[in-house]
Amino acid sequence: MLDAGAPDFEARFSALLAAKRETAEDVDQAVRAIIDRVRTGGDEALCDYTRRFDRFEVSPAGLRISEAEIEAAWNEIDTETLDALKLARDRIESHHRRQKPEDERYTDALGVELGHRWTAIESVGLYVPGGTAAYPSSVLMNAVPAKVAGVPRLVMVVPTPDGKLNPLVLAAAKLAGADEVYRIGGAQAVAALAYGTDTIKPVAKIVGPGNAYVAAAKRQVFGTVGIDMIAGPSEVVIVADDHADPDWVAADLLAQAEHDAAAQAILITSSPALAAGVEAAVTKQLAVLPRGNIAGASWAEHGAIVLVPDLEASVPLVDRLAPEHLEIESADAEELALKIRNAGAIFLGSHTPEAIGDYVGGSNHVLPTARSARFSSGLTVLDFVKRSSILKCSPASLKALGPAAIRLAQAEGLDGHARSVAIRLGLPA
Amino acid sequence: MLDAGAPDFEARFSALLAAKRETAEDVDQAVRAIIDRVRTGGDEALCDYTRRFDRFEVSPAGLRISEAEIEAAWNEIDTETLDALKLARDRIESHHRRQKPEDERYTDALGVELGHRWTAIESVGLYVPGGTAAYPSSVLMNAVPAKVAGVPRLVMVVPTPDGKLNPLVLAAAKLAGADEVYRIGGAQAVAALAYGTDTIKPVAKIVGPGNAYVAAAKRQVFGTVGIDMIAGPSEVVIVADDHADPDWVAADLLAQAEHDAAAQAILITSSPALAAGVEAAVTKQLAVLPRGNIAGASWAEHGAIVLVPDLEASVPLVDRLAPEHLEIESADAEELALKIRNAGAIFLGSHTPEAIGDYVGGSNHVLPTARSARFSSGLTVLDFVKRSSILKCSPASLKALGPAAIRLAQAEGLDGHARSVAIRLGLPA
Repeated sequence: MLDAGAPDFEARFSALLAAKRETAEDVDQAVRAIIDRVRTGGDEALCDYTRRFDRFEVSPAGLRISEAEIEAAWNEIDTETLDALKLARDRIESHHRRQKPEDERYTDALGVELGHRWTAIESVGLYVPGGTAAYPSSVLMNAVPAKVAGVPRLVMVVPTPDGKLNPLVLAAAKLAGADEVYRIGGAQAVAALAYGTDTIKPVAKIVGPGNAYVAAAKRQVFGTVGIDMIAGPSEVVIVADDHADPDWVAADLLAQAEHDAAAQAILITSSPALAAGVEAAVTKQLAVLPRGNIAGASWAEHGAIVLVPDLEASVPLVDRLAPEHLEIESADAEELALKIRNAGAIFLGSHTPEAIGDYVGGSNHVLPTARSARFSSGLTVLDFVKRSSILKCSPASLKALGPAAIRLAQAEGLDGHARSVAIRLGLPA
Repeated sequence: MLDAGAPDFEARFSALLAAKRETAEDVDQAVRAIIDRVRTGGDEALCDYTRRFDRFEVSPAGLRISEAEIEAAWNEIDTETLDALKLARDRIESHHRRQKPEDERYTDALGVELGHRWTAIESVGLYVPGGTAAYPSSVLMNAVPAKVAGVPRLVMVVPTPDGKLNPLVLAAAKLAGADEVYRIGGAQAVAALAYGTDTIKPVAKIVGPGNAYVAAAKRQVFGTVGIDMIAGPSEVVIVADDHADPDWVAADLLAQAEHDAAAQAILITSSPALAAGVEAAVTKQLAVLPRGNIAGASWAEHGAIVLVPDLEASVPLVDRLAPEHLEIESADAEELALKIRNAGAIFLGSHTPEAIGDYVGGSNHVLPTARSARFSSGLTVLDFVKRSSILKCSPASLKALGPAAIRLAQAEGLDGHARSVAIRLGLPA
């Protein structure tokens, strides 16, 4: 509990901001060796690593998960869950369709034609974690925008520890339209996607969350391929006044905290009564939450309740925290939201728990963590397209612009640049 | 000279694609030490490194380049060059104004409100190289879009070897509206921008080109701050048929080649006559080009002329090369351009030498190099803003969506998520 009026507030709030929630494992050397081995050894190296790390035998021909296996997984899932997945897919798809950027072409006053054209990335690899963090919702959130963007080849990799397939993940892959699915994971899967093997053609960009090895591998192959952001532990900040229900707020804090002991849930409130109510409700709910151990550790270690004189005072605090998720539960939620600069996603009003956005809201749940909302955005269709700018001069517009270009090129000592313009205008250079 | 009809073509073209043009210096250790030292030593460390690497004495109070120094630099520049810089600034500004993305808000059929809001990044650092690669055009290309985006604080750093200021760079900073300018460079400048010192407040994102130390420093501070792409040596591919003038084409190839011995200039043509003409013209022009040594080394080492049966056959080759700059000088330039997927910028027709785009075209000259146009785009206003998504449910729309969210959360084993929805709907969870 931090009080914005207390003399030590700035020191305590700064400490909260600076606290490292992740211990960065130094796996760079190990990852470099794995990548090198896959580059030289190809499929055989993939099979070796899979035997070693995922504990099952696989041959190069068996790396790909077959249509029949995906079909079998699909048939295992109950109708209600499938319907929920389909609803999520449809809502994500229709929301992301609105994000497709438009091409442009115009002619300016000098007669110069300018514009740009967007094209989909030719091939994208989607990393899906195995084990407990294998979330079908995450498959949809990454794959659907790629397909909406028009990516022709979407390749999914997912480790299957002990050879066990995750039916929900495969169903999500099918629903989202993944073109190829491989039963590999770790740094070796990232290496295969970046450099290719006989079985797996390389891709142009790799997205999706993963453990420290996957994150290090993505950093190392960046440049050879594009990558998305490196995701850290999840966070929520809830800004609330007396209008909020303490039980609802506590439930939302714990929904975030249950992800991971490194997750962070923070309440900022102008109401001492709400602060007390939430604190009590958290304790009560923790006792019955299945993942109460994890949520309790996160709350004890990284959770906070910040008391402010009024919600206006929460704005600079939120901007410094730059949370992945921001819930605003107050009378003037809309006005307050307009004042916030740094937040990955904003959930307005008491009837918008963040979990709606995780699954079926339609907006993307891949959002900037670890204060990176100061400089980056959540995943959109824009992450799966790229832009070619277009320039076209007529003889007349080149004549109008040419002399200035020649002047600047000469000022920079780049006479070859100047000559390429001058030669067209019959000017000396 | 490569002939697409020759039996060894695929092997030679693949070798061209795979050729490393940059020797990656391993400076990671040295850079890590510099960053650590600046984090602990602050301004004093900056002054020490400046003394050591840039060979002049400076105190913390003298790190900032004053208004008076910028004014004096401005007054040194001749009117014609200043006018050319202003023309470039104005054209870049008016083109980039069209890139400002729009906010959105809509209500879907279920009554869920969705949308997003774009905000400018709160502070941006712009690295400008010193010495021979100090280009005022590059200052404009980075700084103007930041200011168009609405970045309130734009901080420029530029090393001043031996204490000598570059008047053109300072004039460009003034024209572009840089808010603070510091006479520091190298990894130490990147560290200061990322972590701050007593004199220099930290920024949220760092952009701009630099040498191997600067690039390594940017990679290392990524996460603490945002960074732009890591720029490699420049490239042009020119696709041309008999319509093109061999002297003009040669001049454009050499304009690219003069940047750097690691630059790459490639002609793809359906015309053996043009190929021969360009080859001869390159030799002739090299003899009189001031930077002929550099351009000659680039052309000899990395240049190529590729003969194709028709220009249609150039399309897959261009997509594999994914050039930073693509010139199309042919009768059907427009149609051909529409077939290209991977190119940073496309220059259409014989009257659009790439150098126009470097200075006064209005589009940005910061473009993806080293085949990264497969997955990334040139610099735009979008690089200086970020997006907060917005979600708002009413009681009725939460009731409509809630059960599916609960179902998916339970399927993922995240009961806390399910409960945060169920508690609002009076459902058991």
